[in-house]
Formats: sequence, structure tokens, C-alpha cells
Amino acid sequence: MERKQALQKTLEMLEKANIVLTEEEKSKIEITDMGLGHLEVEGLQLLTYINTDRYCAKELVLFPRQTCPEHLHPPVFGKDGKQETFRCRWGTVYLFVEGEETDIYCKPPAGKEQWYTAKHGIVLKPGEQYTIPPNTKHWFQAGDEGAVISEFSSTSRDEYDVFTDPAVVRVGD
Amino acid sequence: MERKQALQKTLEMLEKANIVLTEEEKSKIEITDMGLGHLEVEGLQLLTYINTDRYCAKELVLFPRQTCPEHLHPPVFGKDGKQETFRCRWGTVYLFVEGEETDIYCKPPAGKEQWYTAKHGIVLKPGEQYTIPPNTKHWFQAGDEGAVISEFSSTSRDEYDVFTDPAVVRVGD
Ligand SMILES: [Zn+2]
Ligand SMILES: [Zn+2]
Repeated sequence: MERKQALQKTLEMLEKANIVLTEEEKSKIEITDMGLGHLEVEGLQLLTYINTDRYCAKELVLFPRQTCPEHLHPPVFGKDGKQETFRCRWGTVYLFVEGEETDIYCKPPAGKEQWYTAKHGIVLKPGEQYTIPPNTKHWFQAGDEGAVISEFSSTSRDEYDVFTDPAVVRVGD
Repeated sequence: MERKQALQKTLEMLEKANIVLTEEEKSKIEITDMGLGHLEVEGLQLLTYINTDRYCAKELVLFPRQTCPEHLHPPVFGKDGKQETFRCRWGTVYLFVEGEETDIYCKPPAGKEQWYTAKHGIVLKPGEQYTIPPNTKHWFQAGDEGAVISEFSSTSRDEYDVFTDPAVVRVGD
């Protein structure tokens, strides 16, 4: 999928979720396949509203069944890693974190199973949220309609994220 | 206005803004007249999504022309005061911060002018946002339709807020 097409699809989903953006914000939406070359399977669309040295807020968009690959936020500069609260605004999110295995129906991308080790699943519908502790492996996938998620967190330093799949290339802000 | 009626009005405005809440969240909405006895003139409705020792996110609701009284967030425990990003999701917000006086059409509540000293006005429409530095006086009023605002911030410690009007009684979390 070309950037132009992916951006159009992202904007349509934000519109369905009734999230209003300025024209300048629309032009700043990040679309990343994390270097894996199959955006619709593994990737993420996002807009950072604010990222200061104290807090961060983003809007995340996932296409239908698109998966954000497993990663964790390690300690940086002697401080705890990023702590994230995911609030589902639209659609369905299947979120997996480290912990006891659960029996919810959502599978990692085919052939990539070895890079998806977190098996404690949480289903988030609109209005539901979950806070992921720092330094904890997590990955998430949208349901059949896709998903729009508000992320509230401590400072975001994407360049320090540690992905389980060594093939991931995530260029920082 | 009774709590029940104010809550109903708040839920209707959140629905107009397409903000989805769980039933549990609906029951936790705070409605405060700050002890001033005229909620529709001075007061605020809010829901705290998350408040950790690192970051905070809330949804704020203002009724038509309702004003949140002037206050600032001072340093607490030797750390900078709360820093807040206001993102307008629905309606119009007139936000005033310390700084050069501007000529936007919005007046403090009649008879309360002396407690509204910040005169640098910013108008926020849906999709627009503004970040208020710590330790800076600010107040805000909704336009004729009311307003729904997402607040992203550092940790919230409402009990340390300093209001300009000594009559304000703001009970902390
Ligand atoms: Zn993460
Ligand atoms: Zn404030």
C-alpha cells in the first residue's frame, strides 16, 4: 500500500471515530511498517498530539487485523521506561502483555509466531482502557473493523523501544 | 442545578462529542461548583481516565458559557507544577493565560472580574490544542454550545491548585 492510500484509509477511520484533526496534524500522521514490508499485516498509524519531558498523548490507528509488533519500553537514562494507557475509542483491540496465558481468539501474524511471546490477552472495546507497566512486553491487533486508540503515557522515546523481532526497524521521532 | 440534572447534561454533551464511556466511568464523573454556589456560571464537570505518578488524562465538559475559575499549578514536592495540554474535541473554548492582553470576545463572570487577571486569550475549536506551562495563571470558558476538552498532563494533584478567588473551595481527589 502506498503512503497516500494508507493515509487516506487512516483519515477515514479517524473520521468514523469522530476524532477531529487540523489540516497540519493530518499532514504529520506517521505510517510505519517498521521495516517489515507488509504494512497491512504488521504496522501502525499514529499522530503525536504532544510529547514533553513529562507526558505524551497520541492517537493510534490500526487497520482491520493489523498488528503492532511485540516490544517493550526499557528504562532510559536511569528512569523507568515508558508507561502507557491504551484507551479504545472505536473498534476492537486485542492487547497482549506478559503474564498468564489467556484463551482469547486472536493470533499473531502467520509465520511470525516466534516474535510474539506475550500471551496474556485483554479485549478492549470503546470506552475500555488498560495500563501497560514499563519494561513489559506487549503487542496488539485490531479486530475485523480496525481500531482507534488514544494513548496516554509518560514521555515517548521511540528510538529506545526494544522489539522482539530483530527484523524490525523503527525510526525514532 | 441538582447533581442528577447536571450529570444528565454532561452525559448528553459527551454523547454529542462521540466520547464513549463505560457505565462505571459515568458514575465517577465529578461535578464541582468549587463552593461558589452557581454551577452553571462557575464550575466544571470532569472524568479522570488515568492519574499516575507520571502522567494524567481527563475529559473536561463545560456547559454553555460556563467558566472554570482562574487558578495555577504551583511546584509541589520540589518538582515543577502540573503542565496541561488542552485539546478541544467539541464546541469552542476561550482559554486565558498570563501574558499580553488580547482582544477576543469573552468576558469573566459578571461581578467576578477581580478574580480573573489572566488576559491573554486563545480560542480553541475542535482539533486545536494549547499547552499551559506550570505555575501560570489560567481560566477558561465555553462558547454558546458548551465544550468538551481532552486534558493531557503531568500528574494531577488538585488539592495543591491555587485559585485567585479566595472563595473557591476545591476538594482534591
Ligand atoms: Zn508500547
Ligand atoms: Zn489548570
